[in-house]
Amino acid sequence: MGVASRDSVRVRGFDLTSQLLGTITFGEMVFLELRGRLPRAEESRVIDAVLVAFVEHGMMATNLAARLTYVGAPEGLQAAVAAGLCGAGDVFLGAIEASAKMLHDGVASGGDPREVAREIVDTYRARKGRIPGLGHPVHSDGDPRTRRLFEIADEVGSAREHVALVRAIEAEAATQFGRLLPINADGACAALVCDLGFSWQIARGFAVIARCVGLVGHLYEEIQSPTARPLWRHIEELYRYKDPT
Amino acid sequence: MGVASRDSVRVRGFDLTSQLLGTITFGEMVFLELRGRLPRAEESRVIDAVLVAFVEHGMMATNLAARLTYVGAPEGLQAAVAAGLCGAGDVFLGAIEASAKMLHDGVASGGDPREVAREIVDTYRARKGRIPGLGHPVHSDGDPRTRRLFEIADEVGSAREHVALVRAIEAEAATQFGRLLPINADGACAALVCDLGFSWQIARGFAVIARCVGLVGHLYEEIQSPTARPLWRHIEELYRYKDPT
Amino acid sequence: MGVASRDSVRVRGFDLTSQLLGTITFGEMVFLELRGRLPRAEESRVIDAVLVAFVEHGMMATNLAARLTYVGAPEGLQAAVAAGLCGAGDVFLGAIEASAKMLHDGVASGGDPREVAREIVDTYRARKGRIPGLGHPVHSDGDPRTRRLFEIADEVGSAREHVALVRAIEAEAATQFGRLLPINADGACAALVCDLGFSWQIARGFAVIARCVGLVGHLYEEIQSPTARPLWRHIEELYRYKDPT
Amino acid sequence: MGVASRDSVRVRGFDLTSQLLGTITFGEMVFLELRGRLPRAEESRVIDAVLVAFVEHGMMATNLAARLTYVGAPEGLQAAVAAGLCGAGDVFLGAIEASAKMLHDGVASGGDPREVAREIVDTYRARKGRIPGLGHPVHSDGDPRTRRLFEIADEVGSAREHVALVRAIEAEAATQFGRLLPINADGACAALVCDLGFSWQIARGFAVIARCVGLVGHLYEEIQSPTARPLWRHIEELYRYKDPT
Repeated sequence: MGVASRDSVRVRGFDLTSQLLGTITFGEMVFLELRGRLPRAEESRVIDAVLVAFVEHGMMATNLAARLTYVGAPEGLQAAVAAGLCGAGDVFLGAIEASAKMLHDGVASGGDPREVAREIVDTYRARKGRIPGLGHPVHSDGDPRTRRLFEIADEVGSAREHVALVRAIEAEAATQFGRLLPINADGACAALVCDLGFSWQIARGFAVIARCVGLVGHLYEEIQSPTARPLWRHIEELYRYKDPT
Repeated sequence: MGVASRDSVRVRGFDLTSQLLGTITFGEMVFLELRGRLPRAEESRVIDAVLVAFVEHGMMATNLAARLTYVGAPEGLQAAVAAGLCGAGDVFLGAIEASAKMLHDGVASGGDPREVAREIVDTYRARKGRIPGLGHPVHSDGDPRTRRLFEIADEVGSAREHVALVRAIEAEAATQFGRLLPINADGACAALVCDLGFSWQIARGFAVIARCVGLVGHLYEEIQSPTARPLWRHIEELYRYKDPT
Repeated sequence: MGVASRDSVRVRGFDLTSQLLGTITFGEMVFLELRGRLPRAEESRVIDAVLVAFVEHGMMATNLAARLTYVGAPEGLQAAVAAGLCGAGDVFLGAIEASAKMLHDGVASGGDPREVAREIVDTYRARKGRIPGLGHPVHSDGDPRTRRLFEIADEVGSAREHVALVRAIEAEAATQFGRLLPINADGACAALVCDLGFSWQIARGFAVIARCVGLVGHLYEEIQSPTARPLWRHIEELYRYKDPT
Repeated sequence: MGVASRDSVRVRGFDLTSQLLGTITFGEMVFLELRGRLPRAEESRVIDAVLVAFVEHGMMATNLAARLTYVGAPEGLQAAVAAGLCGAGDVFLGAIEASAKMLHDGVASGGDPREVAREIVDTYRARKGRIPGLGHPVHSDGDPRTRRLFEIADEVGSAREHVALVRAIEAEAATQFGRLLPINADGACAALVCDLGFSWQIARGFAVIARCVGLVGHLYEEIQSPTARPLWRHIEELYRYKDPT
């Protein structure tokens, strides 16, 4: 995907210095690296929005784990980021992948969106499972990120079958459950990246990239004003009382 | 750094949906997440270039390790990215941090750049050490990325004391060693991010973010056309002959 | 679980220096750390056997990933071990956990082992799934590790319902499929640790501990006779030809 | 190092089932995996003691990071262990490696232990550095683990030049600084494993193996009585007040 020779570096078929550096944005580079071609303007705008949406979530368990890791291994920031990513598993990133797969399979089945949506909601309801990409503990009236992400997709005209399907699923779920289970940011992003032609298998990758930025941001804050060490010492002390063996 | 309420999400003091999504690029978000304020246009351009420069390096050892990790743990992409980042240690990312520290300390000493450069080169020469950020095994006549990165910094007027110092070090090293030891991309990026006001301690973080994108790109290629499993099986076989116990 | 004071260290209720160091083996310590009490002699013998069985598997993908990680981050062995563990996911360690859960649920159902075994085999057969803990690509006539592990459990009298159930499942599968699908080492270990009273949720943990030893062993070999760097360089070169952009 | 055929598995030249399973302890397997031969009884006793000494340290930052990782990625225990190991860096495991290197270099220099010790203490004192392996914040009168570990080594007769040197360094430091800087467990283990013929480069590996057991132990406790999620939620809340943007 990239090759260096004496006086040039080629990346995905482009000359890095004359064609990419200073010419494309970082978001466009993300697209190029994943797709092997530069994005069109509308694709670029959607990818930027998706990535921006997932960077920062406050003091997530993963950010806290990364800060604690940095306490023990300050010699290499990358290991603390790695530790943080290890915790970006099914509980935090599972829904985006599960949504993407559900939407992919639904679209691939070729049926009418409303029919497909009914089958999907029926299926999850039958096994009393949560529909991935729907519902939010805090944003119960609708996830504000979803509204804005779909607005952007509509503006640039990138929304297609996957967005249509997730909207149909939201409507069907509202009917069947009698209350709004709003499309959350995971569901919205899943639909958007699938509509851009990405495989459902890489949907989680966008969240991983964005969270990596968040982890570096939290570690920079930790470097500038350390909080993890006193926090850890406090918890260590509490734990000792609980378990005085 | 980020807080969600019923109908809004705030990130670093901004309303995510009305002020950031669809408004800023991913590169600007990286800056915001690290600095707590939005970048000016010239800062944004430099950060984009630095990040774009470090995304793709071909089949690095870290990319290979990530692909092999994915063979055993395809259920969670993030763990393969984490494994790849674990290998982005001193051999691959040490120079950017060491450069940034050297340039920071040199600038902080307050001396004339040429004097400071002389002392730095003297010191490394005396301990027969390599000057971090100088020299490249392939780009012996000058790293094309450096030329372009400095061109961009000059265009937007972001180059300051750290760029001046690394250039002085390159000149001094050429005099003392009698041959060009060109500023490489690590040295260039270190100077650029320090000139933007980032601490030397986070210089490595930019490379970590960029490489995370590269890792996701390699894993997406691995998902679409798997190469790590046959490669591993081949090596396993070779190793068995070498070690027939 | 452990506390240090001025002149003693207590671990899980024991004085580390007077009661554990020089008194118990490392295998006994593993048991103590997980269970909060010392093992009886027969428990200790089974745990040692389980752990010994999973240490070394040749040039596994995880060992290769760890060696490649060490190439880039030789400053901290632990990160290379961490990278290796990241790949010890569902493909390599999923079966031990899935077996343990299957056996736990089967025993917990309280039915007759042969009945339960029939239901289990029926279920997997209906969904055309592989029964976890059964079958081996190389050891088609029976996994020699299983024979030996069960022999040890029988000698010390530690085999109980979970071993009985996995044997019943093997018999039932042979009947239904008309050929031997031998209990493999994953299935054997799952049964043994469940019979010792461990939760199915920690079964994978024994493999993690054993593989950690294997990873350190491979890294020590790598330190003494480096093979990962030339291997990586070779693959990098091959990949460049394949992808000459 | 290991090979499987149809009816046997060979590990490091031994037949796994007939020669190792049920025959050797886990500690002996650790030795075999690292050294390629079985330990003698006295070596086995020392290795067991070293490993037992490093398993449990209470609610270490690494254990806490692993528990937080498990909150987000309960589907694969190994990733939480990996995250924990990422934090076992220079702050926690640096001293054992630095001690081992210092002792190795000192012994390799071939001088009289007291002379070598003087030079070492002089050197560290001159650069106002801490002597690795000496001193302990809690065990100021002597680390009880060291006393016991050296007692075991003396009993079995495994203590040689590295133990002699670290004792000479402790004595010299006491003279130069006018107070006891006791050999701590890191210094003791470094000396013991070097005396057994292990390279200083793998000294840290013993701590990695032992801590891996500790991590699995903490995760098992976390599985049985979850504490990380409420703890994280509490910290998230606190952090929100501190940073109300």
